[in-house]
Amino acid sequence: MTGADRRFMSLALGLARRGLGNVWPNPAVGCVIVREGRIVGRGWTQPGGRPHAEVRALAQAGAAARGAVVYVTLEPCAHHGKTPPCSEALIAAGVARVVSAMEDPDPRVSGGGHEKLRAAGIAVETGCLEAEARALQAGFLSRITRNRPWLALKLASSFDGRIATATGESQWITGPEARARVHAMRAEFDAVMVGGGTARADDPLLTVRNFTPLRAPVRVIVSETLDLPSARLAGSLDQAPLWLMHGPRAPREARDYWSELGAELFDLPALAGGGLDPFAVMEALGARGLTRVFCEGGGQFAAALATAGLVDELIGFTAGVLLGSDGRAGIGGMGVGNLADAPRFRLVETTRIGADVLHRWRRD
Amino acid sequence: MTGADRRFMSLALGLARRGLGNVWPNPAVGCVIVREGRIVGRGWTQPGGRPHAEVRALAQAGAAARGAVVYVTLEPCAHHGKTPPCSEALIAAGVARVVSAMEDPDPRVSGGGHEKLRAAGIAVETGCLEAEARALQAGFLSRITRNRPWLALKLASSFDGRIATATGESQWITGPEARARVHAMRAEFDAVMVGGGTARADDPLLTVRNFTPLRAPVRVIVSETLDLPSARLAGSLDQAPLWLMHGPRAPREARDYWSELGAELFDLPALAGGGLDPFAVMEALGARGLTRVFCEGGGQFAAALATAGLVDELIGFTAGVLLGSDGRAGIGGMGVGNLADAPRFRLVETTRIGADVLHRWRRD
Repeated sequence: MTGADRRFMSLALGLARRGLGNVWPNPAVGCVIVREGRIVGRGWTQPGGRPHAEVRALAQAGAAARGAVVYVTLEPCAHHGKTPPCSEALIAAGVARVVSAMEDPDPRVSGGGHEKLRAAGIAVETGCLEAEARALQAGFLSRITRNRPWLALKLASSFDGRIATATGESQWITGPEARARVHAMRAEFDAVMVGGGTARADDPLLTVRNFTPLRAPVRVIVSETLDLPSARLAGSLDQAPLWLMHGPRAPREARDYWSELGAELFDLPALAGGGLDPFAVMEALGARGLTRVFCEGGGQFAAALATAGLVDELIGFTAGVLLGSDGRAGIGGMGVGNLADAPRFRLVETTRIGADVLHRWRRD
Repeated sequence: MTGADRRFMSLALGLARRGLGNVWPNPAVGCVIVREGRIVGRGWTQPGGRPHAEVRALAQAGAAARGAVVYVTLEPCAHHGKTPPCSEALIAAGVARVVSAMEDPDPRVSGGGHEKLRAAGIAVETGCLEAEARALQAGFLSRITRNRPWLALKLASSFDGRIATATGESQWITGPEARARVHAMRAEFDAVMVGGGTARADDPLLTVRNFTPLRAPVRVIVSETLDLPSARLAGSLDQAPLWLMHGPRAPREARDYWSELGAELFDLPALAGGGLDPFAVMEALGARGLTRVFCEGGGQFAAALATAGLVDELIGFTAGVLLGSDGRAGIGGMGVGNLADAPRFRLVETTRIGADVLHRWRRD
């Protein structure tokens, strides 16, 4: 593996990133084809998951793919799905060498793609920028290996961690730049999720505003009893899918009402103490194909997810305002006694955004 | 004012910064003397406030000061104090031009220094990098113009704004790099201050550790009743001054006990609802000469200061850990109803420090 290999793989990762939020249940893959040091083809997974990155890059390269080097951020697929496998397309195109960032853990691939290429006499190297590729693919990897999506928890709060004043006023703690960034972030996730308490308190639309995403993120609302405000949600079902996770206690009329409007309903087990089982929620989302979920609260729901160890990423927006302990807490009670037992995250990035601070953390 | 003028003034501001925390009740001033484009003298206010920056720089320059340009971050003094005024020293040295960043608002100077220089035929220009100089001198300016020190409030908290777990465990939420930075920050302030609740809960030493500051910051504890743990504080009076702000209810025995140990006591008015009047605390500290105070909590005291509008700077250390709303809040109840009434601060800096985020904000 040379420095040039890593540079081309880095480009491929940049292309892969364009697919985030648009390709579930598939992985977001990037591909660069290089012939004699020149890029002759570039591709990334298209909205909905097809065509695959390699197919797009091969189409662009045309005859120039013969004898070329292919950089791909995930092992090319080996199984016949809706389309013939990418490994066969690469063989047919006569490429000389394939550099991949990592094996695809999907049991239908899992080394089979690399094997097929090698059997056809193509030089295959894997593990190029693998750590970066794993971080980018965290959602797809989570769905395949943990049977649930990657979960990011967003908190926009005051300097002292409050999301509303004592009287409940929350618009606006952070500034317009931070709010615009939240909409851009929503578009990079497969779904935006809130608990029923937030749905009742804020009656949010949960759509992407300011620009039109290639694929509207699914809106997920988790409400044991389906006690939800209806006007704005009911009026926006043409804008983005609405999935409602409810418990056995949800009244039949409410289920029928939302089903008829076009929402998708998930009947899930509730906990003895109230609320839905957070593991069941995440597993249902994974089984339905989601790879990346962006949770925007509220406090009780976020605390349940965090306490269950289901939060993979924290996204904080901190404003330079003081609200005091009578303001509303961003995360509810977690019953943490010893600090050593509290969920810990590694800092990925901190930066200024407008008048506020953005900080991102990941669980490793 | 040329680009070269601003570059030399920027150097002088860097020298001035070395005095922060060491020179109260005086301002931290920096001085650079330039002859034919070469720096021939540099100086900054020495610990305790004397000698002044100009005197040090003139001593270094010697005969080279004749005909030179002097850059000084604050108007040279004009009044006879313990030493002759700097303006006279500059005249005696035969300098040709003085560039200053700002007038000294001290009524004993207030333009008189610049006037004296001009009367002696020296070219005087003022206002060079004035905004930067005002930010650096915020402590001294606050003491002179507001009769109280500049107040920074530090909060080291979890991602969700908690400073301890539900059971009170607080060591350590932030990492060793953040804690070391707190000690370095303490040394840049004239005093470190906490409320009585924190003194009782944590029994803190409040000294600068890891290195020896040029001048140990005063330790200020604000406790209406002087109900304080004594072992560690009593045993450390040789390390740093201890000032105790108390109310009329503080028992005579407690006052005598601390006085005999060498602490300095301040008898201040208490509020009807309990606790000391935060304005009275800050004015007493200003009258006693402090220019920069670093408050490290606790929650009730910080909330009282913030609600009174007395906080000038926020210093946040945020760790990637979740503690939940049953953890201890960093700032107590503030009774903020409308967001528009909450104290707002402008972001100065955000950066990674070890595993944590450091963010600083100032009130303008």
